[in-house]
Amino acid sequence: MQTPFGTDLNPQLNASGELQHFLDTDGLNRDIIERILDTAETFFSPVDGKIKKVPLLRGKTVANVFFEASTRTRTTFEVAANRLSADVLNLDIGNSATSKGESLLDTIRNLQAMQVDMFVMRHAESGAAHFLAQQVEPHVSIVNAGDGRHAHPSQALLDAFTIRRHKPDIASLSIGIVGDILHSRVARSQVHALRLLGCRDIRLIGPQTLLPKSIGELGATRYHDFDRALEGLDVVIMLRLQRERMGTSLLPSQSEYFREYGLTQRRVDLAKPDALIMHPGPTNRGVEIAADVADGPQSVILEQVNNGIAVRMAVMSMCLGNRQKEAAHG
Amino acid sequence: MQTPFGTDLNPQLNASGELQHFLDTDGLNRDIIERILDTAETFFSPVDGKIKKVPLLRGKTVANVFFEASTRTRTTFEVAANRLSADVLNLDIGNSATSKGESLLDTIRNLQAMQVDMFVMRHAESGAAHFLAQQVEPHVSIVNAGDGRHAHPSQALLDAFTIRRHKPDIASLSIGIVGDILHSRVARSQVHALRLLGCRDIRLIGPQTLLPKSIGELGATRYHDFDRALEGLDVVIMLRLQRERMGTSLLPSQSEYFREYGLTQRRVDLAKPDALIMHPGPTNRGVEIAADVADGPQSVILEQVNNGIAVRMAVMSMCLGNRQKEAAHG
Amino acid sequence: MQTPFGTDLNPQLNASGELQHFLDTDGLNRDIIERILDTAETFFSPVDGKIKKVPLLRGKTVANVFFEASTRTRTTFEVAANRLSADVLNLDIGNSATSKGESLLDTIRNLQAMQVDMFVMRHAESGAAHFLAQQVEPHVSIVNAGDGRHAHPSQALLDAFTIRRHKPDIASLSIGIVGDILHSRVARSQVHALRLLGCRDIRLIGPQTLLPKSIGELGATRYHDFDRALEGLDVVIMLRLQRERMGTSLLPSQSEYFREYGLTQRRVDLAKPDALIMHPGPTNRGVEIAADVADGPQSVILEQVNNGIAVRMAVMSMCLGNRQKEAAHG
Repeated sequence: MQTPFGTDLNPQLNASGELQHFLDTDGLNRDIIERILDTAETFFSPVDGKIKKVPLLRGKTVANVFFEASTRTRTTFEVAANRLSADVLNLDIGNSATSKGESLLDTIRNLQAMQVDMFVMRHAESGAAHFLAQQVEPHVSIVNAGDGRHAHPSQALLDAFTIRRHKPDIASLSIGIVGDILHSRVARSQVHALRLLGCRDIRLIGPQTLLPKSIGELGATRYHDFDRALEGLDVVIMLRLQRERMGTSLLPSQSEYFREYGLTQRRVDLAKPDALIMHPGPTNRGVEIAADVADGPQSVILEQVNNGIAVRMAVMSMCLGNRQKEAAHG
Repeated sequence: MQTPFGTDLNPQLNASGELQHFLDTDGLNRDIIERILDTAETFFSPVDGKIKKVPLLRGKTVANVFFEASTRTRTTFEVAANRLSADVLNLDIGNSATSKGESLLDTIRNLQAMQVDMFVMRHAESGAAHFLAQQVEPHVSIVNAGDGRHAHPSQALLDAFTIRRHKPDIASLSIGIVGDILHSRVARSQVHALRLLGCRDIRLIGPQTLLPKSIGELGATRYHDFDRALEGLDVVIMLRLQRERMGTSLLPSQSEYFREYGLTQRRVDLAKPDALIMHPGPTNRGVEIAADVADGPQSVILEQVNNGIAVRMAVMSMCLGNRQKEAAHG
Repeated sequence: MQTPFGTDLNPQLNASGELQHFLDTDGLNRDIIERILDTAETFFSPVDGKIKKVPLLRGKTVANVFFEASTRTRTTFEVAANRLSADVLNLDIGNSATSKGESLLDTIRNLQAMQVDMFVMRHAESGAAHFLAQQVEPHVSIVNAGDGRHAHPSQALLDAFTIRRHKPDIASLSIGIVGDILHSRVARSQVHALRLLGCRDIRLIGPQTLLPKSIGELGATRYHDFDRALEGLDVVIMLRLQRERMGTSLLPSQSEYFREYGLTQRRVDLAKPDALIMHPGPTNRGVEIAADVADGPQSVILEQVNNGIAVRMAVMSMCLGNRQKEAAHG
C-alpha cells in the first residue's frame, strides 16, 4: 500500500509483486495464478481422505463479513480457515452495525481495530472489496468473496483448479460459459483467469439480452446458438440463473429458457465425449441444467465444492504469509 | 452402506453391527444402547466439575444443520463436539441455500463435498435423517437431532442415562410419560429405548385425542386418568405441550389441561416417594408442570441437560470411531 | 455467593473481596479497577502487533448471550475469549428458547447445565445481570455487556484504560461526557469508574431534558452550554445519540441538536490543545460528531475498540481465575 505500484495500479500485489489482497482475477498475472493453483495442490485432499490441519494461520483472526448471505461460500471459507488453524469470526452484518447507520468503511475500521488480520467479504456493491483494500491498515488483507456484478475470483480459481486437475493443458482447451453472462461476477472472473492461463477459445453463450456488448475486449467469443457452440467444447460451465430475472424483458419464461439454454444429456453429447460439466452451485435443476446431467458421470460440480477449500486455503495463506514477510523485513 | 444388511435393514449399523449413524432408538439393540450409556459414563462430568477435553475428533468437522431452530439441542451438540476437539460449523439453513431452491439432498451433498465428517441434523420432516443416511458417502455419519414427529433419539438416551444414574435396574421400574404422546418424537424414542433396556411397565398418559391408537404395538399401556396412573411410578416424564395446539379440537383450554394433566406437588405425592421428575425442556410452567415441581427436590430436569453432553459425546465419538476402524480395515 | 457479604452487598466480589462477577463499575473499588487496568496492560497489543494467545481459559466455555444485538461488543468479547483459548458459544436468543416462552432464569439455568463457565450477557432490562449473578451456581461468572439504561462496565473501563494510556494521572483531569446522559448506561458506568479513579472534575453536558436530576449524587457537574463546558477539558467523551429519540419532546431536530451539541473542529479547539476525543461507537457522523473530528488527529475512537480486547481479557481471566482459586481452597 505504501508504494505507488501497490496502491494505485494494483492493490492486490505488494511492491515485490506478491499477493497481499485477493480481489479479482483481473489484475493478477499468470505466474501468481499458477502459484495459487500449485499451492492449492499441496492443500488438496479428496472428500473422504484424511484431513491434515496446518498451523499456518495459528493466532490469526479471519472475519467472514457477509453483507449478502451465502451459506455455501461462507462455509467453505470457514472450513479453509479452520484447516489453517485460524480463529474465525462470522459476522452477520445484515442485522447489526450497518443497520445502526454505520458506513461500510466505519464497520471495517472498527473490526480492524479488533485485531482482525483478514476480511473475507461479500458485498452487493461492485468495487466494495477494492475500495476497502485501499483503506485498511498495511497488515490487513481483504479477500473478495463476491462484489456485486463485478468479481468472484475464488470461484474462478477453484474452477480453473478443477479443470487443470482433469485437463492440465488449459491453453489448448475450448471452454464454454453459458447463461446470464451480463450479470455474472463469476463469468467475468472466469474469463480473466482462463485468459491469463492461456486459454484461447472461450465461448460466452446465452440470449442476446444477457451477453455484454464488450465481449471482444474480454478475449472471448459470443454465441447465441447453444447447440452450435457446444461443438468441440472440452468444458461446459453453466451459470446459475437468477430466477427473479425470469419473465422480465431480459429473459423468456422458464420452460422457454430451458429449451434454448438448459443443459440436457442430448446437448452434453454435442460436446467432446470427455467434456467436463461444471456449475458454481447451487444448481436450479430444470432451469439451467437437467438433474441427470448435474448428477451424471461428466459432472464435476461437487469436486468444485471440495476444490474450493484447497484454493481458498492457498489464497488465505499466501496473502497473510506475504504480510508476515513484509513485516519481518521492514 | 455397502452391505445389504447395512443399507436396507438398518442404516444405523455397519456390517459388524456397530453404530455408524445415529437415527432412532428403534432399530438399535440393548447391547448398543448399553455401550452408548457406558461410554457416556466415561465422558460424564458434574456441572461444576473440571472439564477434560479429549482429542477423539481432532481434525474432524461436525456440521450442525438445523432446519428447525433449537438453541438448546444445537448448543448441547456444539459443546459436546468442542469437548471432543472437533471443528464445528453452525449452519442456519432457514435463510440460505434452501431458500434459493436447493433440495435437502443437494444441500447435504454440497456440505459433504466441504469435507464435513458428521451432520447433526434437525428437520421438520419425519424420516429426513434416515433418507440422508442412505445417500451420504460411506465415511460420513448422520446424527438425528429430531425429525418431524418421528424420533429424537439423543433425548431418549440422555433420559435413559439420567434414570440409570439414579435407579440402575431399569427393567424393574414403572415409568410414566405424560402429555401429547401422539405428536411427540421424544415419547416415541423413549418407549423404544426403555423397552430395549428391559422396562416392562411403561405408561403413556394423556387425553384420548393425544394418545396413539397403536400403543399396544409399542409395548406400553394407555392411561387417561393421570392420578391413577401415577400410582407406583418410579419416574414421571412430562412432555412439553405445543401451545399452538391449545384450544383446538385436540386439546382443552390451558387451565383445563393443567387441571387434568399438569404435574403438581399433590400429584407428585401420588407416585413413589423417590420418583424422579423429568422433562425434556423447555418447560411450560403452569401448563404441563407447576413451577415448584420443576424446581423441586425430585426434579432432575437440569441433570438431563448436563447428561445430554456426555451422551452426545458418546454417540458422536462412537459413530466416527467406527468409521475410522472401517477405513483402516477396508 | 455463600457469604452474606458476597451475596447481598456486592455480588461482584467474593468473600476475599476479589472479582467473581463483573456487573457494574458501581460497587467496585479503586484497587480492583486498577488491578483490572494493570492486567489489561499485560494483554495489550497494538492493532498491527504480534498477537499472543494465552491458555488461561483453555477448557472453559464462554457463552455470549445477547438478548439485544450488538455485533461490535459481542465480537470484541469473542476475540478476547479466543485469545484466552476459551471455547465460545454464540447464542442468538432473540429467535430461540425465549420465544418458546422460557424465562430468562430458565434459559440461563439450562445453559449453566451445559457446563458453561461464564455468561457474557446483554439484556434490555436494567438489573438483569445482577439478578442472574445471584442465581447462578458458585462456579459460574456473569459479565454484564450492557443491561438496559443501567450499566455497561466493560465500556467504562476500556475508556478509563484508553485515557490512562495517554494521560496517566486521571485524578487531575477534567473530563466531559456529552449527549443523552439520562438514558445512557455508558455514561453511568463511566462516572462511577472515573470517580473511583479519583477524577474530581466530571462534566455532564447535554440538553436539560437529557440530564438526570440526581447528578449531584454521582459527583459530577451539569452543563447545558457545550462551548463553555469545553473550557479546560482534557478528555471529551461523546455519547451515541439514539436517532429514534430525535424529534420527540425530549430532543430537538437533528440539525438543531448538532448545532447545540455536535462536536465540530471549532469546538475541539475550545478544549485543551491535546484533549482526547472519545466515542463508544458506532458514531453518528453529522449527528453528535463531525466526520473530520471522528477521524481527526485527537480522536482515539479506534484505539478504544482495540483496548476493549485487552480490558475484556482482563475481566474474563480475573473472574474465572478467582473462581478456580476458590475451588482449589474449598
